[in-house]
Amino acid sequence: MRGRRSGESPAIYPEGSFSRVLPVPAVHWSDDRRALRILDQRRLPEAEVVRDLVTVDEIIDAIRALAVRGAPAIGVAAAIGLAVALRHAAVDADARRGILAAYATRLIAARPTAVNLAWAVRRLEGRAAQVPDDALLEALDAEAEAIRAEDVAMCAAIGAHGVPLLHDGCRVLTHCNAGALATAGIGTALAPVYAAHAAGQRVHVFADETRPLRQGARLTAWELTRAGIPVQVLPDGAAASLLAQGRVDLVLVGADRIAANGDVANKVGTYGVALAARAHGVPLYVAAPWSTIDPATTSGADITIEHRGAEELAPLPPGAGVWNPAFDVTPAALVAGYITDRGLVSPPFTI
Amino acid sequence: MRGRRSGESPAIYPEGSFSRVLPVPAVHWSDDRRALRILDQRRLPEAEVVRDLVTVDEIIDAIRALAVRGAPAIGVAAAIGLAVALRHAAVDADARRGILAAYATRLIAARPTAVNLAWAVRRLEGRAAQVPDDALLEALDAEAEAIRAEDVAMCAAIGAHGVPLLHDGCRVLTHCNAGALATAGIGTALAPVYAAHAAGQRVHVFADETRPLRQGARLTAWELTRAGIPVQVLPDGAAASLLAQGRVDLVLVGADRIAANGDVANKVGTYGVALAARAHGVPLYVAAPWSTIDPATTSGADITIEHRGAEELAPLPPGAGVWNPAFDVTPAALVAGYITDRGLVSPPFTI
Repeated sequence: MRGRRSGESPAIYPEGSFSRVLPVPAVHWSDDRRALRILDQRRLPEAEVVRDLVTVDEIIDAIRALAVRGAPAIGVAAAIGLAVALRHAAVDADARRGILAAYATRLIAARPTAVNLAWAVRRLEGRAAQVPDDALLEALDAEAEAIRAEDVAMCAAIGAHGVPLLHDGCRVLTHCNAGALATAGIGTALAPVYAAHAAGQRVHVFADETRPLRQGARLTAWELTRAGIPVQVLPDGAAASLLAQGRVDLVLVGADRIAANGDVANKVGTYGVALAARAHGVPLYVAAPWSTIDPATTSGADITIEHRGAEELAPLPPGAGVWNPAFDVTPAALVAGYITDRGLVSPPFTI
Repeated sequence: MRGRRSGESPAIYPEGSFSRVLPVPAVHWSDDRRALRILDQRRLPEAEVVRDLVTVDEIIDAIRALAVRGAPAIGVAAAIGLAVALRHAAVDADARRGILAAYATRLIAARPTAVNLAWAVRRLEGRAAQVPDDALLEALDAEAEAIRAEDVAMCAAIGAHGVPLLHDGCRVLTHCNAGALATAGIGTALAPVYAAHAAGQRVHVFADETRPLRQGARLTAWELTRAGIPVQVLPDGAAASLLAQGRVDLVLVGADRIAANGDVANKVGTYGVALAARAHGVPLYVAAPWSTIDPATTSGADITIEHRGAEELAPLPPGAGVWNPAFDVTPAALVAGYITDRGLVSPPFTI
């Protein structure tokens, strides 16, 4: 399986025929295509709040505050956001390229671990360099829309490539949210689950709560129950005993960055789940767009891990400190395979 | 080290000279010795609420709702509680033994995993069988007080036996709360930390938050900051990467039940920490009173694991289920040693 596509046919669930499981996409354009429209994930599952954002400050705030989160969704949000923010800035055509560069730098700094963010922004910058000034705004709109549409297709492809790993009655453990809410489409880690469900297979999902922000309990459980897929939420600390009891057939997680050697940066807690899965012979697959693989990152040791604030662990007694990394690194040796839009692959990622 | 006491001297911190770190003991008699007095742990760290309980219903409710928790504290609470509840029942002397038996059965059922609870109740029943009817209440009071005083001494002894495992500048990871709040004294897993601190050593504690009830964030962090010991709280999912980064010298955890083969039932999440500690060569010690070792339990497979309600993981989307075991089982192979009041031991526990 090293460095090649899976031999399994992805034909069970044809690419592109199934692009949405949510009533509102996690990230999209507004109806007039002049704003970035997001489903505010801080308010789920209690309320479905849709927000339209136009300034670069609003967009950076939304990314930093996790109103939009999940590496693919952040990439799409940054692309649409950069296009609409530049249009909104309403500066002279002469000044636009300078503003674009400044916005790009600020957007990339908003979440340092998510490689898709920088990837999407750089792609818009690359496109901008190819067009004359008077075509800049339209070119950025088109490039951002291409990134969004590719994300939808990417999710469907991951679903199709992942489906052969599941079976009827399959019990899947996942961590955090790498579902529809983390993308513009049907998700990454959950895409095979949705595809299998749509193909008539019964799938049962165990969702780690995923402290501190509870994305598993709030987001994964929400989108799966909306899709009619049974889900049980467990405390993060219970995953090892769930695996020990033989209650899980496979683990599916997303990725925020995949190093060239296959080490995976993902939501903190993934590494502990991977260790427990290995201890009990349960395969762990990482599902992510091909763009998550970063050839410039040699190994997990090169990945900068963002640390977040103490307020995420509140309430705490006065005087207590926190250690709150947003991500951890799972070594490639603990990963059974990487489900990408280009197929089921393993390092070296040379296809 | 198998089956014998540690060769280390426990003289660094003499037994009995240091019995309290909290302003109010977690569990004690009321001033008039007619009630069980507890520090209501559901209210910490926001409020220090002391409650006096006299009826068996109040006492069972407090144990079941975790107003008093931690295996040793539950044992002491059950002992004092049984003594005061029987006195409070104010029945004819003839009927007392029947009431005692009924209360004992109900108390033992309140938390099935905590062996100390049954152990304490059985000990009072044994004492009751030795005395005439007119001496019953006084005998139960005396036996309950003996259990409490022994618990205080047990904690001090664990501290003394555990201190040689620490060093100046030592970085300790713990899970849940096995501190002063879990006992009538200075705790079990935290007893070596308090003893080292009192002996002038610098100790830094990392406390897993310990979802779902956050005993690490609420209780361990509270009692350590009160004692002037630096503590950082981390999400449970971050423990594996903390260990991977070499930030921990040893792991200290408590136990709710230790099987004859050394398998340990403790707060859910302990097993995952143990796997990660093993993966990174960090020793994990279990600190518990000798009475936690249950010769009647052959291995972890024989331990009944209590499952708790969905409300502990709220808020959840409508329709989402939970999997919420209160405990997990850590195999003996992952435990470097057992710090008991009788010394540092390993299975078979034959001393």
